Amino acid sequence: MTDLPPSIDSDRLDRLAEVAVRVGLNLQPGQNLVISASTGTLPLVRRVAAAAYRAGAGLVTPMLTDEAVTLARFTNAGEASFDVAPGWLFDGLAAALDQNTAQMSIRGDDPMLLAEQDPAKVARQGKANSIASRPALERITRFDVNWTVLAYPGTAWARQVFPHLTEEEAVASLAEAIFAASRVNKADPVSAWTAHSAALRARTDWLNGQAFHALHYTGPGTDLTIGLADGHKWQGGSSTSRNGIICNPNIPTEEVFTTPHAQRVDGVVKATKPLAHQGNVIDGIEVRFEAGRIVDARAKSGEDAFKKLISIDDGAARLGEVALVPHSSPISQSGVLFYNTLFDENAASHIALGQCYSECFMQSDLTKEQVASQGGNSSLIHVDWMIGSGEIDIDGLDANGDSTPVMRQGEWAS
Amino acid sequence: MTDLPPSIDSDRLDRLAEVAVRVGLNLQPGQNLVISASTGTLPLVRRVAAAAYRAGAGLVTPMLTDEAVTLARFTNAGEASFDVAPGWLFDGLAAALDQNTAQMSIRGDDPMLLAEQDPAKVARQGKANSIASRPALERITRFDVNWTVLAYPGTAWARQVFPHLTEEEAVASLAEAIFAASRVNKADPVSAWTAHSAALRARTDWLNGQAFHALHYTGPGTDLTIGLADGHKWQGGSSTSRNGIICNPNIPTEEVFTTPHAQRVDGVVKATKPLAHQGNVIDGIEVRFEAGRIVDARAKSGEDAFKKLISIDDGAARLGEVALVPHSSPISQSGVLFYNTLFDENAASHIALGQCYSECFMQSDLTKEQVASQGGNSSLIHVDWMIGSGEIDIDGLDANGDSTPVMRQGEWAS
Repeated sequence: MTDLPPSIDSDRLDRLAEVAVRVGLNLQPGQNLVISASTGTLPLVRRVAAAAYRAGAGLVTPMLTDEAVTLARFTNAGEASFDVAPGWLFDGLAAALDQNTAQMSIRGDDPMLLAEQDPAKVARQGKANSIASRPALERITRFDVNWTVLAYPGTAWARQVFPHLTEEEAVASLAEAIFAASRVNKADPVSAWTAHSAALRARTDWLNGQAFHALHYTGPGTDLTIGLADGHKWQGGSSTSRNGIICNPNIPTEEVFTTPHAQRVDGVVKATKPLAHQGNVIDGIEVRFEAGRIVDARAKSGEDAFKKLISIDDGAARLGEVALVPHSSPISQSGVLFYNTLFDENAASHIALGQCYSECFMQSDLTKEQVASQGGNSSLIHVDWMIGSGEIDIDGLDANGDSTPVMRQGEWAS
Repeated sequence: MTDLPPSIDSDRLDRLAEVAVRVGLNLQPGQNLVISASTGTLPLVRRVAAAAYRAGAGLVTPMLTDEAVTLARFTNAGEASFDVAPGWLFDGLAAALDQNTAQMSIRGDDPMLLAEQDPAKVARQGKANSIASRPALERITRFDVNWTVLAYPGTAWARQVFPHLTEEEAVASLAEAIFAASRVNKADPVSAWTAHSAALRARTDWLNGQAFHALHYTGPGTDLTIGLADGHKWQGGSSTSRNGIICNPNIPTEEVFTTPHAQRVDGVVKATKPLAHQGNVIDGIEVRFEAGRIVDARAKSGEDAFKKLISIDDGAARLGEVALVPHSSPISQSGVLFYNTLFDENAASHIALGQCYSECFMQSDLTKEQVASQGGNSSLIHVDWMIGSGEIDIDGLDANGDSTPVMRQGEWAS
């Protein structure tokens, strides 16, 4: 294929596609695949399609969006447009997932695409899409099927990450960073992923053995206690989907994560990285939680967008995920700010606003009501948000308040 | 937008987008739009989206396919893949049409994309797609909503049409041909379309007044009697959809057309142009009909593909449309063979194998059973096929066999 900018190495992009299909999805012979991606990532979409068919895929269906079409809406559409979402398309996707279709998302969008657009319209279309896509998102978050998310070095994204380089150099640098973080530079990427998953599994086994009642975070601007959901389970690396297939839902991944208790979060916390959300960069976030809910929120920039985000519904101001990542993780050490959650969340410990992962419980197949009664949060959104750094200490608290060191200065304590 | 090859005039492409939205669809304020297109036509998709939003569209959703992904399937997929189709996506489209969503198709594909692939696999995936898309296609053919089809000068298509030109010259020439045929070179394209529709309406009024029982075609290799469906109605130019919106379903269009009787076609007919179908060019078709059905079929090239096409189901070997186009039509006079039905069908009188248009009856809202009992054909396919030229005479026959000249030497007789 001759569709690739010369700044992206074709061989390693092919290997990324193979890792995505074999490690990320663990796609089974005869299984169908839907790829959600924007047109700017087509070189990788095409390579993934070829790799999936080589692995025996039934049908590969790209579900493509286009950034120029998105922008044409904000530039030209009337007021009423911004509450409309393609429910028929998301419902179709949910139906495909119910038929055991694997799902892949390729991220490579311009993080600043909507930065100059009316934040109210951005929020409204985001909410409309969240509502319409909820049935599909639920099937993903409860791991009905094997799914994965990975990244392609889109041009506008690369320029945002490396603003002082030429376009070609920026794309080349972002491609290198993605290849390194996704472990496709290794001689045998599949074995490298197996070893990495085992290391993450050792961490989750220790944390699950401790069965902490809460985590206590201390650091500059942060003194936060996050209660963990009753019967919570730490996950990391590979996941076993309900269809029995073991997949790696994030490429790259460095995190272990679980479900916090939606009513038991108290204290103050300061974000350690900017949050790129729906075409806006929200920087300098500081919030205070009471009984699980954000009761005070500030940001140095994008405060309005952040406040709109947490007021989408009641669950949007509560936590749905807590994740631990050592400060020495390769992505953190690269020193690159990616303006992209898939990467930045793997550079720092983080929390997520909104919907919890119902698979982060010891008991499988919990009903929605059971998840809620054990403290799992429910929301239209799920937005990750970095609070870790080399200055953060974390302690595990048991039900009596007795404390065990978990992280010191951003590194595993043991 | 800077996405356009220099060989395509941006201003006239903008005007084509405007004509598509205002004349083709007559899109109503608040109405949603789905655009079916391949990624090679994105410059026009983006301009249509902008024009649709300027016209007050609710939401514009591109449903994009990618030729490289299609080809990746034929190159890499296992045997079982070729009977799978994205039913969930077509069902979603049908649901969108049920919600009064307008539909646009942009054609610009490589007519030879699948020419080197196994014809059996091409036929199998074509059949699987036909079955899966039938609910959506039915809503289109019975005009539930306003819809339109238009074209973009894709590179591979342009090279096929103008093989002796450079790529840039070929794209420029195809763009010019599309702009001219689509009437966007006129000072006021919308008025030009209004006048053109009135001229086509005068023809359909005359034909509907005659209420012929059959048409009799004579010419080199052709002696064919096509019975017309009971209560048939000639259509042409604009159509009034069941949602009450007057649209122009084809841009360009030069034809008037109606529903033939599926059991009353007899004689021999010779195609006057090659038929480009699913990545194959079928040339030199000659067939014999008996009681409505093709009983003998030959072709100089692509005979196997043609025979597979007419054996998809019983209705695939019967006629679903008969259309009259004068040999002096602008597209015919351009002398260009487009290898694309949207254009070539407007250069010559033609027939279509397969599904009939249920709106080509005097009585509206006929049930499927009523359509069938009046002679309307039913099939998974609808494939147009050129039988007109400057050497064809056509007579209208009444129920007694009395004859009225309709066309002489390819031109309207009156």
